[in-house]
Amino acid sequence: MKVEIIAIGDELLIGQTINTNAAWLGQEFSSRGYQISRALSIADDPQQIITALNTLLPTTNCVIITGGLGPTKDDLTKHTLAAYFNCELAIHEATLAQIEAFFESRNKPMLDVNVQQAALPTCAKILKNRRGTAAGMWFEKAEVIYISLPGVPYEMKTIMTEEAFPLIEQRFGKSALFHKTILTQGIGESFLAEQIKDWEDRVREAELSLAYLPSPGLVKLRLTSFKGKEEEPLILSFFQELQDRLPEAIFGEEEQTLAGVLGTLLLQRNASIGTVESCTAGLLANTIASVAGASAYYQGALLTYSNELKHRIAEVSLSALQQYGAVSEEVAKEMAANGKRILGVDYCLSTTGVAGPTGGTPEKPVGLVWIGLSGPKGTIAKSFRFGDNRQRNLDMTILSAMNWLRYQLVCD
Amino acid sequence: MKVEIIAIGDELLIGQTINTNAAWLGQEFSSRGYQISRALSIADDPQQIITALNTLLPTTNCVIITGGLGPTKDDLTKHTLAAYFNCELAIHEATLAQIEAFFESRNKPMLDVNVQQAALPTCAKILKNRRGTAAGMWFEKAEVIYISLPGVPYEMKTIMTEEAFPLIEQRFGKSALFHKTILTQGIGESFLAEQIKDWEDRVREAELSLAYLPSPGLVKLRLTSFKGKEEEPLILSFFQELQDRLPEAIFGEEEQTLAGVLGTLLLQRNASIGTVESCTAGLLANTIASVAGASAYYQGALLTYSNELKHRIAEVSLSALQQYGAVSEEVAKEMAANGKRILGVDYCLSTTGVAGPTGGTPEKPVGLVWIGLSGPKGTIAKSFRFGDNRQRNLDMTILSAMNWLRYQLVCD
Repeated sequence: MKVEIIAIGDELLIGQTINTNAAWLGQEFSSRGYQISRALSIADDPQQIITALNTLLPTTNCVIITGGLGPTKDDLTKHTLAAYFNCELAIHEATLAQIEAFFESRNKPMLDVNVQQAALPTCAKILKNRRGTAAGMWFEKAEVIYISLPGVPYEMKTIMTEEAFPLIEQRFGKSALFHKTILTQGIGESFLAEQIKDWEDRVREAELSLAYLPSPGLVKLRLTSFKGKEEEPLILSFFQELQDRLPEAIFGEEEQTLAGVLGTLLLQRNASIGTVESCTAGLLANTIASVAGASAYYQGALLTYSNELKHRIAEVSLSALQQYGAVSEEVAKEMAANGKRILGVDYCLSTTGVAGPTGGTPEKPVGLVWIGLSGPKGTIAKSFRFGDNRQRNLDMTILSAMNWLRYQLVCD
Repeated sequence: MKVEIIAIGDELLIGQTINTNAAWLGQEFSSRGYQISRALSIADDPQQIITALNTLLPTTNCVIITGGLGPTKDDLTKHTLAAYFNCELAIHEATLAQIEAFFESRNKPMLDVNVQQAALPTCAKILKNRRGTAAGMWFEKAEVIYISLPGVPYEMKTIMTEEAFPLIEQRFGKSALFHKTILTQGIGESFLAEQIKDWEDRVREAELSLAYLPSPGLVKLRLTSFKGKEEEPLILSFFQELQDRLPEAIFGEEEQTLAGVLGTLLLQRNASIGTVESCTAGLLANTIASVAGASAYYQGALLTYSNELKHRIAEVSLSALQQYGAVSEEVAKEMAANGKRILGVDYCLSTTGVAGPTGGTPEKPVGLVWIGLSGPKGTIAKSFRFGDNRQRNLDMTILSAMNWLRYQLVCD
């Protein structure tokens, strides 16, 4: 099956919004074995929508249209598609009821423009939008399926996942493509490729396809079988070999996150965790807490950005701060050890570093980060040297901290 | 002048890479008053490139082609364009010299594939790539300009800025289009549109164009003049009127952020800030701290996810926790007031809510959030009802908290 994406929105063309919807759709369709052949962004303009629909590739049999729905855009897409597919708009009762419930649950007055959002093309199958007021629409014409979705990412993703993909797979079936992914942290893409060259050669001999999927601080390795699920054992044996070779780097598989894996390990051990953060300023705590059910092991944190608070709240000794400076092994260890006691947790991670862009010195350059870890077996700190990009340094810091604790828990 | 973008790369279609180049080009062109009419992503495939070039909009007079250059892609784009514009490839001496210097400066061996990168279409004006080995190319055919650039963002941006835009402005001049944007928080898009209907009518009578640009929790309003900067006073007077009507909602303009505006206000008042967070788990502190120079006013925070820590670290009274529960006006107020004292700051924001997806009750449904604010004038708390999407609730919570304090500071 071949898919084209048409994203509608002036904000995409003037660059105020980055089209992350297209990337998400690309990942979701290709993981299901369908192929995206083109992705087009156009203005909020009926003529451009018509032109796009009239110039699809002859091979295309599914078109995903995002955006151009919603009251302030006068539901541009809806009216244009109704005209294109030759039908009227009529109030769709189930959608109207759902929009009414949506506003009621928010104690917000429902406006006439919102009522109008329930006026939908009679020739469309309506796809329920559990998260918003603009319903999805499914049209068919000459063996081609057209799916119109709101541009708001979480609404679009919800409708695709809950409503559209099941119908698409009913219609087009699931391809034989079978993927498995493992997740690594702490080894750069090219360095990783160098280390597993021999493994990669044997993967190719076995006629599996390997993809490196780098994301900030992580590299995902995806193996694909063209024969289908029957080759799962083969893929798993290849992954097991990597797991044995790189136990510190490989932390999970498929859609797992480092925070999720760490949380599961803490739950299994009935252990609690807290953080004491300087440079990461809550990013680590927030990431740990973002896992559903995290409240079972995540208690809280002390964010001590200033040295004064490092001393007053985290009880770091003035002598350590003066003698070694805030970015030092000693301060990282005191932050972790004191945090463990003050927060009353089993494990405490601490971060202190020079995230940049400024603040670097010859001895303590931008990118230098100390991470402290205090647990039942005592307190240690490790230093890392990241690059000169602030956000990347912070991302690398929290990933490195979580993966370090993960590996400690696995080994204990 | 009307521009189309053609981005070449399988990685864009399978979602491995988000097409940030298109957004950057959109910003740069529209800030210069040129209009991007379409942006297309296609596969690494000569036939698709030809198809894209043959189906341009008749109004287009400039085409930006990114990607498909570089040794690993066999300079696909280069060969396809040479054929399309009927010319040969020949070694371009200046480019060859520049590639040689590039490798020399990095002490890396120059491979034959790199030499081949200097073989360029004889019908193209060559645009120097100071940061890489794939040169930019400028073609002209029937009054349309075609600019081919590497897909690596910093190489593409460098060539556009240093080589292409000066030539484009020579050729097409600078257009009159002039934009200004103001930023609102706390009023939904459709509700905002309802409130400023009359203003919007007068904007259109004045022949300015208005765009609503919603992003999570915010709505940007952009006014565009087709006569140019001479109408800036007119635009500013319209914005001033809105500012007077919606002082709580309008927090800034252009590229400002709520955290940045809040930071500036705190600096002007030489005031410090801290947070005590439950449901937001550090997201608020992290956002406040993400502003360059935030250490001048941001001290730190207490993250008290568990009731035990609310009591032990933030010193919330057990009676308030038992009588009213963690998500309550009283607890929000105690968190803010105690945080102000414990952290030793001038202003303290607190958050406690039911972010979801689970944990809701009839009296305290998912989406209910209490925000506390303690400052020189005392302590108050406000409740908010957001939706059922956890991440959105958290984003709305921190935006609402920052905007509330911002407005307090402005009014004080």
